[in-house]
Amino acid sequence: MLIEGKNAVREALKNNLTINKIMIDKSFATRKDEIINEAIKNKIKIEYLSKNILDKKSKTQKHQGFIAETVDFQYCSVEDILSYAKEKNEKPFIVLLDGIEDPHNFGAIIRSCECAGVHGIVIPKNRSVQVNETVIRTSTGAITNMLIARVTNIKDTIEQLKQNDIWVYAAETGGKEIYNQKLNGNIAIVIGSEGFGVRAIVKSHCDGIISLPLKGKINSLNASVACGIIVFEILRQREE
Amino acid sequence: MLIEGKNAVREALKNNLTINKIMIDKSFATRKDEIINEAIKNKIKIEYLSKNILDKKSKTQKHQGFIAETVDFQYCSVEDILSYAKEKNEKPFIVLLDGIEDPHNFGAIIRSCECAGVHGIVIPKNRSVQVNETVIRTSTGAITNMLIARVTNIKDTIEQLKQNDIWVYAAETGGKEIYNQKLNGNIAIVIGSEGFGVRAIVKSHCDGIISLPLKGKINSLNASVACGIIVFEILRQREE
Repeated sequence: MLIEGKNAVREALKNNLTINKIMIDKSFATRKDEIINEAIKNKIKIEYLSKNILDKKSKTQKHQGFIAETVDFQYCSVEDILSYAKEKNEKPFIVLLDGIEDPHNFGAIIRSCECAGVHGIVIPKNRSVQVNETVIRTSTGAITNMLIARVTNIKDTIEQLKQNDIWVYAAETGGKEIYNQKLNGNIAIVIGSEGFGVRAIVKSHCDGIISLPLKGKINSLNASVACGIIVFEILRQREE
Repeated sequence: MLIEGKNAVREALKNNLTINKIMIDKSFATRKDEIINEAIKNKIKIEYLSKNILDKKSKTQKHQGFIAETVDFQYCSVEDILSYAKEKNEKPFIVLLDGIEDPHNFGAIIRSCECAGVHGIVIPKNRSVQVNETVIRTSTGAITNMLIARVTNIKDTIEQLKQNDIWVYAAETGGKEIYNQKLNGNIAIVIGSEGFGVRAIVKSHCDGIISLPLKGKINSLNASVACGIIVFEILRQREE
């Protein structure tokens, strides 16, 4: 994956992404630069190239003289997430995303899940944002501490989790109020897409539907905020 | 305030903003158009103008033939918020924002507060994002149901709230865990800026500091997600 632009490359360094090399405009070679210093400190290879060559390598044409080549994000399997919970000797705590499309929401969800002690996130291969540069940046480093599995079919994953004694709940309106539902066991939560929520076919595979009480006239939360509220309510109940 | 571009004008109509008039490229006058239909239905004045004149009125040069002129957002006073809570016969529930800078965060906060039954939001006049087009759009309509007061000095507002028997807590790391703190009385919460949190001087005026338990290595939530988790925890305790 190529990460382009001064800020994005600086963030990649800060977020401990595995960087193969950083390509820098050779006219910057003699400058005192934070990125160059940081790269040298972390023993990351620097290639000084002409602006012309950087332009050719760039996909966005917004490289500002800095392009980092990182290792592609390594997705894990659902089994890896289950093993990680076992290793930590904790009841599994998993979040499934049924079609999140906005990379800022995905990044914020990774950040909240990392803070709440979620063991892993599962996303579908299709009809969903994948881990990209914006997701990485928005997660503010949380991505490097979070297992993310990518599956062909969320429904099959739900069945697999249920076979592993995990209760799977869809987060949607019209379900049981989250504060009246015991959520301190082995648990997985399905968060739906920004526009359409959890699909009916996915809901039908879940053990139940949980909802937030909504007191306003609008009654629709941002997907990443809703996910944050739910994972922290689960954390509250787990720690009680 | 001018709202420019097809999507933004459509959203303004959907969000029930008070629109004085919509200026539309006159070459669109004979088209079947959703915005034109909606404007006619809502008896909003339409002015058909030449592209040339629209270009002159536009501030963004991205009007796409549609500019809505809306009434400027009407801020209220802190007293209005207190009166509203009284009118609803509810214990005051107020959110103070000490320097939020990102309009997307502000919009998402308005949305979460509306859903959680917050009576009003207080922002400072300086060093803070104000209600603008992005805030309105991100709030997905919640802005029309939310009282927002703008004050010169957040510290003075905190003292004013305390004199009204309201407990004021800063949301910050290193305080009392939110789940161990009684939050079901008259309450105001201070949310800090994205980069720096609640300022020390503001914190010193608060009755206490409340914190979310953080289980990860990154341990920093997005400001709007943190606000969402906190207002819903307060809602949970209020409804218990």
